[in-house]
Amino acid sequence: MPRYKLTVEYDGRGFHGWQRAAGLPTIQQALEDALMACAAPAEVFVSGRTDAGVHARGQVAHVDLVKQWDPFTLMQAVNFHLGEARISVVKVEEVADDFHARFSAKRRHYLYRILNRRARAGLDEGYVWHIPVMLDVARMQDAAQRMLGTHDFSSFRAVGCQSKSAIKTMDEIRVERVGEEVHLHLASRSFLYNQVRITAGTLAMVGKGAWEPERVSELLEQKDRARAGPTAVAGGLYFMKVDY
Amino acid sequence: MPRYKLTVEYDGRGFHGWQRAAGLPTIQQALEDALMACAAPAEVFVSGRTDAGVHARGQVAHVDLVKQWDPFTLMQAVNFHLGEARISVVKVEEVADDFHARFSAKRRHYLYRILNRRARAGLDEGYVWHIPVMLDVARMQDAAQRMLGTHDFSSFRAVGCQSKSAIKTMDEIRVERVGEEVHLHLASRSFLYNQVRITAGTLAMVGKGAWEPERVSELLEQKDRARAGPTAVAGGLYFMKVDY
Repeated sequence: MPRYKLTVEYDGRGFHGWQRAAGLPTIQQALEDALMACAAPAEVFVSGRTDAGVHARGQVAHVDLVKQWDPFTLMQAVNFHLGEARISVVKVEEVADDFHARFSAKRRHYLYRILNRRARAGLDEGYVWHIPVMLDVARMQDAAQRMLGTHDFSSFRAVGCQSKSAIKTMDEIRVERVGEEVHLHLASRSFLYNQVRITAGTLAMVGKGAWEPERVSELLEQKDRARAGPTAVAGGLYFMKVDY
Repeated sequence: MPRYKLTVEYDGRGFHGWQRAAGLPTIQQALEDALMACAAPAEVFVSGRTDAGVHARGQVAHVDLVKQWDPFTLMQAVNFHLGEARISVVKVEEVADDFHARFSAKRRHYLYRILNRRARAGLDEGYVWHIPVMLDVARMQDAAQRMLGTHDFSSFRAVGCQSKSAIKTMDEIRVERVGEEVHLHLASRSFLYNQVRITAGTLAMVGKGAWEPERVSELLEQKDRARAGPTAVAGGLYFMKVDY
């Protein structure tokens, strides 16, 4: 059976996350329904599940179909059958059958958007985390650099995280101011459950001046979720890209 | 009575435009309801009304209130009472009583966003105009420059436009590619009804190669709406800023 890699963009608002859940609107369900309508019943495998409210610019999934499709035709057909759902398949490629959206992934890229101004979000409500206190980006960057490389990220994973190991390698972590926003860019082979959002919550505490950048080094030693920052809101998080 | 200038951001989706209309959700209505809840019944005067679906980053309005307010307190109070509405008052300033949001405006700035890729919009549905054919930005820029300065823009106004004169001065018009998008930036003291959207529709025809850039010069001579391009979708339009 030919295998197709789908690059998918979606608006996390209005979905109960990626994964199929009986009776709830999810991205996986919407995609599988659309595939069923134009191709055949098929299970979609994803690079990384996202929670309710989390967005994607370049989520990746793969699917096996019974017949051969021209990639562009398949993209157009799935998008047509997605109807009003705020999901778009932005690219389809035929791949070898040893390609796996999850297991072949070498690096995942996330963006976290903070709206950093006094007034609440208007146009961007649901797409950013609003922090009305001015953040010190240099302090945040100092704190962030301490996470680069291989560490035990136990302080930065949700209590319910099911990964066997909390040892991960952070390939990139960068903080920048972009107009009224502060953007966090993170890249790693894989992330723990809620790792990016807890990292955002922790860096925000440093940016506000409540914590010193050194606290991040201590957190990596302490391996205690309770001492890290809050889990930042889902709507600020974007799954951007996967490298294979 | 003290007069306040409000800078307002909003998501045009879910509103029937700026102007109060019995029984329909509008931005004016939401703001006046919020002001009534925290201050007093007051009429809000706007710099430029926007149609249903059109967004704003920096719309400007003014309002007279019976009592004196600290500007920041007023901003917070109005935003609180706006509740779930995707509107945010991003700045409040006390102004002299000869300030008028509409009549004192020296220049209005608009942005028009085109999503220019093959796949439809996912995350940005309702916030961009999707054109799947690759646009030639240099051709669009050539066409756009022909609108700079003072012209009769009769070809670029909606049939229902009530302005006495179609003679306007375009201070800025610029086309740029930004990632997968093409952005049009326009600035003028004032615009005719639907002028920006008809301009976007016309430049898109040039960008697709269907029309030559010279057509814009001809349109300015011909003064015939029927010969200009289609009115581009409301969701791509952003009211960005007013200079006073």
